Amino acid sequence: MNTYSITGSYTDLYEMVMAQAYFLENRHHTPAVFDYFFRKIPFDGGYVIFAGLHELLDMLEEWTFSEQDMDYLRETLHLHPAFLDYLREFRFHGNIYACREGEVVFPFEPVVRVEASILEAQLLETLLLNILNFQSLIATKAARIRYVSGSKVLSEFGFRRAQGLAGIMAARAAVIGGFQSTSNVYAGERYGIPVVGTMAHSFVQSYESELAAFRAFAKHHPEGCIFLVDTYDTLHSGIPNAIAVAKEMEQEGKRALGIRLDSGDLAYLSRKARAMLDEAGLTYMKIAVSNQLDEYLIRSLHEQGAPIDIFGVGTKLAIGHPDAVLDGVYKLCEVNHLPTIKLSENLTKMNLPGKKQVYRVFNSDAQFLGADVIAATDENEAELLIMHHPFEPGKSKKIKGYPLEPLLFPMMKNGKRISPRPALQEIAAYAQKRLQQLPPEYKRFEFPHVYKVGLSEKLLQLRDQLRAQYQHSWMNHDT
Amino acid sequence: MNTYSITGSYTDLYEMVMAQAYFLENRHHTPAVFDYFFRKIPFDGGYVIFAGLHELLDMLEEWTFSEQDMDYLRETLHLHPAFLDYLREFRFHGNIYACREGEVVFPFEPVVRVEASILEAQLLETLLLNILNFQSLIATKAARIRYVSGSKVLSEFGFRRAQGLAGIMAARAAVIGGFQSTSNVYAGERYGIPVVGTMAHSFVQSYESELAAFRAFAKHHPEGCIFLVDTYDTLHSGIPNAIAVAKEMEQEGKRALGIRLDSGDLAYLSRKARAMLDEAGLTYMKIAVSNQLDEYLIRSLHEQGAPIDIFGVGTKLAIGHPDAVLDGVYKLCEVNHLPTIKLSENLTKMNLPGKKQVYRVFNSDAQFLGADVIAATDENEAELLIMHHPFEPGKSKKIKGYPLEPLLFPMMKNGKRISPRPALQEIAAYAQKRLQQLPPEYKRFEFPHVYKVGLSEKLLQLRDQLRAQYQHSWMNHDT
Repeated sequence: MNTYSITGSYTDLYEMVMAQAYFLENRHHTPAVFDYFFRKIPFDGGYVIFAGLHELLDMLEEWTFSEQDMDYLRETLHLHPAFLDYLREFRFHGNIYACREGEVVFPFEPVVRVEASILEAQLLETLLLNILNFQSLIATKAARIRYVSGSKVLSEFGFRRAQGLAGIMAARAAVIGGFQSTSNVYAGERYGIPVVGTMAHSFVQSYESELAAFRAFAKHHPEGCIFLVDTYDTLHSGIPNAIAVAKEMEQEGKRALGIRLDSGDLAYLSRKARAMLDEAGLTYMKIAVSNQLDEYLIRSLHEQGAPIDIFGVGTKLAIGHPDAVLDGVYKLCEVNHLPTIKLSENLTKMNLPGKKQVYRVFNSDAQFLGADVIAATDENEAELLIMHHPFEPGKSKKIKGYPLEPLLFPMMKNGKRISPRPALQEIAAYAQKRLQQLPPEYKRFEFPHVYKVGLSEKLLQLRDQLRAQYQHSWMNHDT
Repeated sequence: MNTYSITGSYTDLYEMVMAQAYFLENRHHTPAVFDYFFRKIPFDGGYVIFAGLHELLDMLEEWTFSEQDMDYLRETLHLHPAFLDYLREFRFHGNIYACREGEVVFPFEPVVRVEASILEAQLLETLLLNILNFQSLIATKAARIRYVSGSKVLSEFGFRRAQGLAGIMAARAAVIGGFQSTSNVYAGERYGIPVVGTMAHSFVQSYESELAAFRAFAKHHPEGCIFLVDTYDTLHSGIPNAIAVAKEMEQEGKRALGIRLDSGDLAYLSRKARAMLDEAGLTYMKIAVSNQLDEYLIRSLHEQGAPIDIFGVGTKLAIGHPDAVLDGVYKLCEVNHLPTIKLSENLTKMNLPGKKQVYRVFNSDAQFLGADVIAATDENEAELLIMHHPFEPGKSKKIKGYPLEPLLFPMMKNGKRISPRPALQEIAAYAQKRLQQLPPEYKRFEFPHVYKVGLSEKLLQLRDQLRAQYQHSWMNHDT
């Protein structure tokens, strides 16, 4: 009962319904290509950090229908016996091209491309969206918080307010975005993330006095001793008691790590606390804070010169407040080697046809120029001289002469990973490296510069030609 | 790799750090009582639907530290060997009192009371909050959507945009709040929820024509045939093709179920679609809609008289948009049989001391009067004549003569469930029954009436006395 396994049934029913139709029509081997992309950057921000990829690939390598799934599909969903036989042997055999996990990515560009039989590619949709949308949301939030936190220590504290099981992956994504640690033991164990933890108010309350609680805690945790000082009265009880116990520890040749403030005016209290600790000769003791933190509050504390060393960021990180969602979608762009589109009255709701590569344009300082160009995979990179606005006809930008770098790399071939899974810290380091290459005007919170994503000449023509063709065929239908 | 198990390590490190200190101090058997309650109703609403309880109890019955956990706690977290031995045998032995799952609950009242050794009760904190906060959030959102949907069919469609694994529990909570079904196969299999699913645009695109796609789909899904009609042009292609195939099905003695609209002006298109279907004699075909729905959009569609039969509600339900969080907390209220509080400059941040029961006040029509009173468990229900405002001294309300009903029931004794787990449908039925008893002014979306939660005379006195006592002791400290 306490176990949740990502099996074949971790999907929406319509994927299975379609898969069954493909199978029964004997169309299930038809080759298909799908793109994963998003349309809107959350948090009114200027970029998204792509996360979740390697966890998705892990899942895909072991993606099968369990016996329990098979029973359910047969007895409750009454799937066709021949299709059930097919599912019993089901494995994912497709190819996956993707941006590196940790990449800085932008709206409308393919972040992942899936090439597989239409059945396999379709069945993958819900799982892929479920994993990538959420982790990218949280990694992006974490990167924003890191941006205003400089070299301060950031720890993810959101497990209790996370959306249930989502708290597990939230801790992983937070590290990708720039956090050092988590409060979450499960995530520490699963992902090798450093875990941290101090004490709750209940611990202090459970002792006859705050002083007795701190002494007991110090006795058994000499190496990780952070006192929570706001159970009764921060300035008149908590900090004096923490100082008293820290001085006692010194006499035993030990050192307390610090104090934690979890309520009140953190700017004011941290300054007071710093002065009191320094006055007592405890300059090495750190000040940690928590309580409804986000990038704006941390920036404000920084502006006020609050002498805080460690930020524990909970709810607003773990749920990706306030958006709580990345609107990533998964769209068919090629079937049976022919490019395809879904039409819409709204041009921004149309997908881009065919197999595509994304190139990032660099300036001479190896910084991002602020432009990515989407091209067909069979285009020659050297011939990409201009990029077109995807939705405003006639608007274009010259990219001739700038260095380009492809963003989509093969990650999985015939259902097998191409290269070993990178360590989480490598993914996080890549994200920070790429964020360093992104100019500050894209990273600011207020009206960030809009990073340009354009289409190659060839891709623009292909899309507009398909669009005209489909529209023409309706007109024929209509008359 | 693909499995996530709720074991002992599904917690925050500080719970373990405190537990270890209790153990090493030999205080771990100290009896303690904790309350779970929340302070703010999400969605600017008038109530919360309590959900997640029976899933939490399931977890607690099997809550142990796995071999893998033990290795991690020893080798990476370096817990004390004696404490590790204790954890190896760890089981939860406590008592749990709770509102019935599906209960309508309000801020500041205890929704769950945990009585256990302080070690066990503390270790439970993160798990309890993680499960109850999220499911209650989603059940509440679902209830709001049900409220404006009357007897229309509601299906949860949010798996792809859910916060990763949270999508599993979101489907369960949606049913408690009033949804009939989900798109999520995994949740269907796990919880016995009916699953529904139609087709994606990619299915239509993968065929040489929309008509061919509909025919293929109809052929293999005669019993569950809902055509997605907006891939190319809803009115000029999608609906005419759906009608054509539905008529063909009639000739074979079959009936199509309906159509689904996933874009455009749903009010306008549903009216047009209804007229076209009726004109073709397909009055039995249903109209399903999806696309960014929430309670406000559904209410608006209803006001416009849109002839919609089935609503598929995705993102905004599955993430609990816009709040995405219920701020539930878990606070120590009694230790070693003595009531305790955590002080705060802000009275609303203080907890209520001691073991408490909550009584709901009814009017003579068996409707909720709009008042719950929190009392000490050793108070006589018949003597509850008045309730006091928890934060505004001097404000009170007479409740003498009204029927009262206790809300907290024993659910688990010595770590074992007292009664069998109710079926999900029973929980959902209970929620709807209780919502029927809640007067409409608490259910409206705009400035709902504030349901009164008050304290018994005795509880008020206990809290204020403890508060004075603690404050007095600081003053002594200060001088």
